[in-house]
Amino acid sequence: MITGSTQLIAHLGFPTENFKAPMIYNPWFEQQGIDAVVVPVGVAPQGLADMMRGLRQMTNLRGALVTMPHKVSMLALVDELSPTAKVAGACNAVLLRPDGSLLGDQFDGAGFVRGVLRKGFVLKGKRVLVSGSGGVGSAIAASLAAEGVAEIALFDSHEASSQSLAARLAEHYPHLRTGHGSNDPAGFDLIVNATPLGTRPDDPLPFDMARVTPGTMVGEVVMKQAITPLLAAAQAMGCPTQQGTDMLFEMIPAYLEFFGYGTATPEQLRAVARIPA
Amino acid sequence: MITGSTQLIAHLGFPTENFKAPMIYNPWFEQQGIDAVVVPVGVAPQGLADMMRGLRQMTNLRGALVTMPHKVSMLALVDELSPTAKVAGACNAVLLRPDGSLLGDQFDGAGFVRGVLRKGFVLKGKRVLVSGSGGVGSAIAASLAAEGVAEIALFDSHEASSQSLAARLAEHYPHLRTGHGSNDPAGFDLIVNATPLGTRPDDPLPFDMARVTPGTMVGEVVMKQAITPLLAAAQAMGCPTQQGTDMLFEMIPAYLEFFGYGTATPEQLRAVARIPA
Repeated sequence: MITGSTQLIAHLGFPTENFKAPMIYNPWFEQQGIDAVVVPVGVAPQGLADMMRGLRQMTNLRGALVTMPHKVSMLALVDELSPTAKVAGACNAVLLRPDGSLLGDQFDGAGFVRGVLRKGFVLKGKRVLVSGSGGVGSAIAASLAAEGVAEIALFDSHEASSQSLAARLAEHYPHLRTGHGSNDPAGFDLIVNATPLGTRPDDPLPFDMARVTPGTMVGEVVMKQAITPLLAAAQAMGCPTQQGTDMLFEMIPAYLEFFGYGTATPEQLRAVARIPA
Repeated sequence: MITGSTQLIAHLGFPTENFKAPMIYNPWFEQQGIDAVVVPVGVAPQGLADMMRGLRQMTNLRGALVTMPHKVSMLALVDELSPTAKVAGACNAVLLRPDGSLLGDQFDGAGFVRGVLRKGFVLKGKRVLVSGSGGVGSAIAASLAAEGVAEIALFDSHEASSQSLAARLAEHYPHLRTGHGSNDPAGFDLIVNATPLGTRPDDPLPFDMARVTPGTMVGEVVMKQAITPLLAAAQAMGCPTQQGTDMLFEMIPAYLEFFGYGTATPEQLRAVARIPA
């Protein structure tokens, strides 16, 4: 129950209608007796700077979960960035520290990588294709590089985005092979859809599945539905898969620790969450 | 349950620990299937302007409940004020309208007056003493004047506050007798404590109860406890009384209507509220 002592976590994004985090964190907080609540805070891009200036003034704000379209612009609005947020070029978590300063961090990529690892898939030395070089794609690429994959190929319909990400990866991971410009999934050990394709019923598949081999792992970030058309096609071919919500649940323990609310396993979180698993 | 579609009402004040509104509104919203939630938003005086600039950016904010210490400073931060807020010189409700503008209103006084009337007490033509000329005292005086009392005597330890309120009353209600400077309750039909006295265990009583006659109605705004020392003394003398929380519950229907969430009776609200009645 919300009282005057409750701490808020602002879930920043726009639009807010498809937010899932309140239905995951809040039941967990309630079960654990943690006096905190995640609330949706819808704000359009042009309003974010004013909103952050306002949120800095709050005496009962613990921090913010940051989602589209604010993950990149948030970089310039915090006082300090974690190394992961810097490499990813995006920020999805903000902590309001006791001294009033804001620390930005990034857990999208960690959530994706932890999910893949927990499925028994070894990442070290593997070849990976990441389609989509926006905030989440960049974060996943950064975390995959940190985990020691051998090669990351990047594709984005905005060529400059994948080019820029490739340059950042090369700068921080000189031994990593990087490339960009092709969306052909042939020959990769892991392919990741980090684009919004699959959100709308008439979206095309993000990859040409005829070029995918059955052993390839297929990762998805779209979480509007558990089994997107991409995942359905992958499963029909016998490919191992990772759903969008897997990444979501895997990153939550990292957020909880970041906000100082202990930790949890994804299984514990799923057991109390009030959204379809 | 809070989802991405939930509208927020920011409960603005500082400190937030003694806030009661979330435990009144939220159970009502839940019972009625209204997808809205009141959340505490703690902000110190110097942060209020930034906070309001931020809140204006929110796409899922319905408005704000405004409490101490912001009721007066909020006057300058909205785009339009209701007549009641202007006379009271304080604002305890803000509506974020679809065009992005902020409307300020004031329901403290209406809550007090409606509570007294519902107890069968006639206000027209009566003599009233209001101790405390801050936001709530001014609001109560404004609403009492609008209800047609004959005389309002004002007292505040800051003489300038009661003097200023008396001048505003005289300006808007030329037939009303007003006075200020004395806290002597002798001869009044209704005496109102609109000071914080009674909040702390060692506070003195706000009136010399030896000078009160048994028929005098005694009103209280302190709501930290149901029966304050003032109300206990009044009840021991056989005076009719109104508790601080009475005012709170009586004003809530006005807030609900202001925010466009229908209405309710105080009894309906009390039945679902999760605070001691």
